[in-house]
Amino acid sequence: MSTSKLQVIPLGGLGEFGMNMMALRYGDDIIVIDSGMMFPDSELLGVDLVMPDLTYLRDHRSMVRALLLTHGHEDHIGAVPFFLSDINVPVYGTAFTLALVERRLEEYDIPDDTHFHAIKPRQTLEIGPFKIEFIHVTHSIVSAVALAITTPLGVVIHTGDFKVDPTPTDNELFDLHTLAEYGKRGVLLLLSDSTNADRPGYSDSERAVRPKLEDIFQRAQGRLLFSCFSSSIHRIQQFLELCQQFKRKAAIVGRSMTTVSEIAHSLRLLEIPDSILIRPQDFMDTPRSKVAVLISGTQGEPMSALARTAVDNHKHISVERGDTVVLSSRIIPGNEKLIFRMIDHLSRRGADVLYGSTNPPLHVSGHASVEELRLVLNLVRPRFFIPVHGEYRQLAKHAGVAAHLRNLGLEETFVMETGETLEIDSHGARRGERVTVGRVCIDSGSVDEVVGDVVIRDRRHLSEDGIVLPIIAINKHTGRLESVPEVVSRGFSVADDGGTEFLQSARMVVAKTLEGSNHEEMTDWGVMKEKIRADLKRHIAKETSRRPLIMPVILEI
Amino acid sequence: MSTSKLQVIPLGGLGEFGMNMMALRYGDDIIVIDSGMMFPDSELLGVDLVMPDLTYLRDHRSMVRALLLTHGHEDHIGAVPFFLSDINVPVYGTAFTLALVERRLEEYDIPDDTHFHAIKPRQTLEIGPFKIEFIHVTHSIVSAVALAITTPLGVVIHTGDFKVDPTPTDNELFDLHTLAEYGKRGVLLLLSDSTNADRPGYSDSERAVRPKLEDIFQRAQGRLLFSCFSSSIHRIQQFLELCQQFKRKAAIVGRSMTTVSEIAHSLRLLEIPDSILIRPQDFMDTPRSKVAVLISGTQGEPMSALARTAVDNHKHISVERGDTVVLSSRIIPGNEKLIFRMIDHLSRRGADVLYGSTNPPLHVSGHASVEELRLVLNLVRPRFFIPVHGEYRQLAKHAGVAAHLRNLGLEETFVMETGETLEIDSHGARRGERVTVGRVCIDSGSVDEVVGDVVIRDRRHLSEDGIVLPIIAINKHTGRLESVPEVVSRGFSVADDGGTEFLQSARMVVAKTLEGSNHEEMTDWGVMKEKIRADLKRHIAKETSRRPLIMPVILEI
Repeated sequence: MSTSKLQVIPLGGLGEFGMNMMALRYGDDIIVIDSGMMFPDSELLGVDLVMPDLTYLRDHRSMVRALLLTHGHEDHIGAVPFFLSDINVPVYGTAFTLALVERRLEEYDIPDDTHFHAIKPRQTLEIGPFKIEFIHVTHSIVSAVALAITTPLGVVIHTGDFKVDPTPTDNELFDLHTLAEYGKRGVLLLLSDSTNADRPGYSDSERAVRPKLEDIFQRAQGRLLFSCFSSSIHRIQQFLELCQQFKRKAAIVGRSMTTVSEIAHSLRLLEIPDSILIRPQDFMDTPRSKVAVLISGTQGEPMSALARTAVDNHKHISVERGDTVVLSSRIIPGNEKLIFRMIDHLSRRGADVLYGSTNPPLHVSGHASVEELRLVLNLVRPRFFIPVHGEYRQLAKHAGVAAHLRNLGLEETFVMETGETLEIDSHGARRGERVTVGRVCIDSGSVDEVVGDVVIRDRRHLSEDGIVLPIIAINKHTGRLESVPEVVSRGFSVADDGGTEFLQSARMVVAKTLEGSNHEEMTDWGVMKEKIRADLKRHIAKETSRRPLIMPVILEI
Repeated sequence: MSTSKLQVIPLGGLGEFGMNMMALRYGDDIIVIDSGMMFPDSELLGVDLVMPDLTYLRDHRSMVRALLLTHGHEDHIGAVPFFLSDINVPVYGTAFTLALVERRLEEYDIPDDTHFHAIKPRQTLEIGPFKIEFIHVTHSIVSAVALAITTPLGVVIHTGDFKVDPTPTDNELFDLHTLAEYGKRGVLLLLSDSTNADRPGYSDSERAVRPKLEDIFQRAQGRLLFSCFSSSIHRIQQFLELCQQFKRKAAIVGRSMTTVSEIAHSLRLLEIPDSILIRPQDFMDTPRSKVAVLISGTQGEPMSALARTAVDNHKHISVERGDTVVLSSRIIPGNEKLIFRMIDHLSRRGADVLYGSTNPPLHVSGHASVEELRLVLNLVRPRFFIPVHGEYRQLAKHAGVAAHLRNLGLEETFVMETGETLEIDSHGARRGERVTVGRVCIDSGSVDEVVGDVVIRDRRHLSEDGIVLPIIAINKHTGRLESVPEVVSRGFSVADDGGTEFLQSARMVVAKTLEGSNHEEMTDWGVMKEKIRADLKRHIAKETSRRPLIMPVILEI
């Protein structure tokens, strides 16, 4: 028996939503599973995305052997470009996952001297003391895998994100057999997705949205706008099939929608019916009942194609009375206001907007509910269990699910948060020392800018570039400005006069942005904040070569 | 036939969520239906509540004859104190509704020279050219009514808020008969609640929560904490009955919980089983399996009893491993973060927290879903229809529901937003001139302060008292302060030195607030913002007698 110990080191995603990253260390070898980001919440205005602090990995740089990716969602791969620009190790994942990562590398203009290794389910590979087998799982994204990692101390199963979908649209079933085999032989530790641990029952199959979507296509008289997450290849496939069935031509609008569809198509994961596609610029000229568009923007992101269409500010797409808009997606908590404002705008234009919980459903979750979590626990029968991927309440619920199962042989469940560690040796498992973790904010320029110069910004260094707060009072009903814009700054002085001149020029920039906005934009603070932030950032970078945090404050009156 | 016209003037609640207020004018007589508030969203940091602009009513003060209240929810009565302090007219409502209003008047210390008239369902009264009958409806609050208003031009039905509950816990059924009679005789205009117009099917009965709650009481081993909206007398009744059934003593904690229960009890709307109540201070000394507490704070409000308990900062109540916490309530959009943080804190203490969508349900909506809306439209058979109470998307959905009904005899539906008006005369109905509307922010001092000096603050006068922004950087993981607090101000200078001294003292106040907070509070920005705001407001009022807007900015790093 080995005298070394296995350390389980969550660097993100435990006790928080998003930015999943987990390190496993045995002796002097470390492998890392996923490197995700999270979207900043409203408390973090002024940054684009948030990723885990890499200090622990940087401090053990020479030990890091590989980055293993379970699937291509942003909360699992979004930080890979930043990870690789710092810690350059081989990356393993399915072809689709790697293609999504490469797209991000290109966007951030990061030189591609990385060794990417496409793996397939059932394939195994050895990295130092770890032997890794990839196991196909069903999830809302295609080509998702779990990992079975054999270590000198026993087998660690990491589920990645999953649900147990008995009828996936691509007919690739969850490989429960392989999971069961490991369970039969004995599993030391299970790490399992807790995202939906607070939902009873089973999650619906991806195929469950078909009846409702068919009904919508059946009834729609005018143009049909269909929005889903751009990575939902299952959903996009169904949309294209329905277009064919109901004889509508399809346009694809939105950058991520277009590129992800192309990637999936090139890997034969998405079938595009012959000659069904039209160019976005031909959408409005095609007869209304003969056309549909796949459009990005389910979360009401102010600069997304759908949000722009909602305020009649998209160059190719408009909406008019009698059109149908479908949001085949969930409302990510925190985005309610943006989404509902967008829906209100679309409704005012006369569109029938379909959204939210319906029966049959417009959207299904990609994560396992309680009964599926039970199934996996029963198949794997681990000695130790760590619920992963979720806020504390979800991890606690998942632990409760395990506690109520009989004859599982489970010795102990560890509810752990990012930064807490577990040590396993031949004597058992126990909590180890805390490691350095945290959140790093990424300020990559506005969506409109070419993203060439990524700035990884640590909020602790706030004092370096300072903070600028433009303050605008807008009348909600009229959309009129109720006072001259104010600009307040802190830790950001640029001239001998205390910055008076700079503040004056900043106010003029804000005033100009406001003048150039139409009435609907003016009543939509999401759009206004983004526009003001982008314009002011450009101005300040040009004038001072600095990048303060810019946090527009809009007072609605 | 009359030569005068009837004007329908929505002053709040159409195309926006909350602050419902509707005026009806015929000739020189105006009656007002409801005067509600809305809670400020995160864009309006620094104010306590928001109410409709009263300019229109003020400009026609001599014509206003009465304020009619449909029920006692804050979005229908919350602005009554401010309304009456400006426009003193007789108020009509059920005894329970008026008792809730009087409680608010006392809180705001507004002299009670108002004529309050308690009405009962089926009662009629005449006010100028209007003859009004009150019709009992079922809703999540008891003693709710709809209004049938006979005018010289015909009958206007205003539903107030409602659902059609076939088994209300107080056995007081929706008076569909009276509604049907009006429908048979002919109704000119229907104004009907649209809150749930985007939900298919029927809303569940209030009684539908009983099985789940019974199951929870059955299983609970430790202490049981039960939270619901304080106005949910139906829910509180069921809680008390379950305490009796399962032999638990009950404590009631939280100011609004206590006073509303007392009001309902005194009006015989709430039955309290004999000797079941204990004092909050005796809760922790009663055997764990023999006690339950009704506690306020379903929305995670930072200063609420439940939120304080979650961070172990309540003087009478604590939570430990094995306790059960029930949130029998919905998550009001915008409150997700506060609520989920509270649940996470409670989970960390080892409580089993029950929340969200379950089957059978923990909570049911008080508003009518599509089938119930159809029922009311079919019974009333109005000539004209205005969907009320909802964001634009809900009003539009409600209009769509009406459009799909056959043989209704509906001449026209008007989807209108606050400020738009409708004019009806003997020739028909048409849109009229816009009137002045808007939102007024109320800054009534912090929840801890005695609220004696209500300040009605108009954001347009921002420049008068200025704005103060305390900026704090807290490390989310450690709860540690990452820099000295900054205080930025604008339009708020108090001294010759440009306010340097003032800013210095303000920074010290913030620093002191931070020092006096425990670790869990420090990682909870909701609590911290509220504390900083309260302390700084007190300091500034004392030093300068001014009341700037205070908007704490917390940077989580």
